[in-house]
Amino acid sequence: MKIYHAPNTRSIRIVWLFEELGLPYELELFKLGDAAMRTPEYRKVHPMGRVPALQDGEQVIFESGAIIQYVLARHAGGRLAPRADSPEFANYLQWFHYAEGMIMPPVNTLVVETVFLPPESRNETNVKRATKLLGQMLAAVEQGLQGRDYLAGDFTAADIITGQATIVAARLGGDISDKPAVSAYIDRLKARDGWQRALAAA
Amino acid sequence: MKIYHAPNTRSIRIVWLFEELGLPYELELFKLGDAAMRTPEYRKVHPMGRVPALQDGEQVIFESGAIIQYVLARHAGGRLAPRADSPEFANYLQWFHYAEGMIMPPVNTLVVETVFLPPESRNETNVKRATKLLGQMLAAVEQGLQGRDYLAGDFTAADIITGQATIVAARLGGDISDKPAVSAYIDRLKARDGWQRALAAA
Repeated sequence: MKIYHAPNTRSIRIVWLFEELGLPYELELFKLGDAAMRTPEYRKVHPMGRVPALQDGEQVIFESGAIIQYVLARHAGGRLAPRADSPEFANYLQWFHYAEGMIMPPVNTLVVETVFLPPESRNETNVKRATKLLGQMLAAVEQGLQGRDYLAGDFTAADIITGQATIVAARLGGDISDKPAVSAYIDRLKARDGWQRALAAA
Repeated sequence: MKIYHAPNTRSIRIVWLFEELGLPYELELFKLGDAAMRTPEYRKVHPMGRVPALQDGEQVIFESGAIIQYVLARHAGGRLAPRADSPEFANYLQWFHYAEGMIMPPVNTLVVETVFLPPESRNETNVKRATKLLGQMLAAVEQGLQGRDYLAGDFTAADIITGQATIVAARLGGDISDKPAVSAYIDRLKARDGWQRALAAA
């Protein structure tokens, strides 16, 4: 399978997933903001010219959450997700979807305002609003982690997608100073072999 | 099961799902922006005081995508989603996640700027940027609908979540004037009994 990947983007989630599963993969590498992502050729893979995307034989699929669920269903033999009859199943799904539903919208705003836009175009109201919202989103993660090391029992794909979102949120200024469980969680994730191998891959 | 619902929010997705499946449900109703959603009692159901949330016996779950996947896995007998070995499976997952990954971030911005904020606080740069982005997101839906009535073959839960997001996006000013497949898709969704019963439910 081929992963379309750019370091410092959501696509690290897919590389991390493959590393945790020990599945072989090929990387097609871009840089963040790469003009090569806006060619007509790449737009056949991803209509908005973004990463990640995955090619599996003739099948092309984008959206990190979709790719993860696709790989789990087709290639993981039941690993990294609780079964539908597990008491952790609802928790798993809730935290799986939490990344894009709750954490990433303010993260997107902060990336646009503080990374993509030149400083003179930065809107401080947007930055303030997004940073405050991010703190609230991380407070719910803090609550979800009470008494546990991972969001849904053992380490699962929910920790890949929402874990990565949490790492990015903290890096962009989401307040974790009053959130010891989130801090410890981030350290725990970063210490995993799979995460480190994913970072080293590109 | 009990659905925590407020009209004109994402929670219509869950009511629509139950209506399509013919599953019985109870509604706990809020109005958009309701103070009752910010009580300590409701924050035990949803830490950010939002809808939707679902109660199934002792289990409480939030995030609309998670609720849909939970209900499909536990209560739908395989309906409204292709099997993992179906050729439509990747498509289904991709369009399922497209709603929150791609369409809702600019929708959120437009709701904040044009519904929640007083006109004097509105930021026209944000509105313009989000409206343009929404047009691009809908262009990919237009492309995904070429030669088909629904996003992943027969009507599936991807049409509930991304269909509802598409309806809202068009309502908030996402340009569909040059997107005949999206226009026809919106009409097709709105004509469904399940959609109409969901709107009539509250």
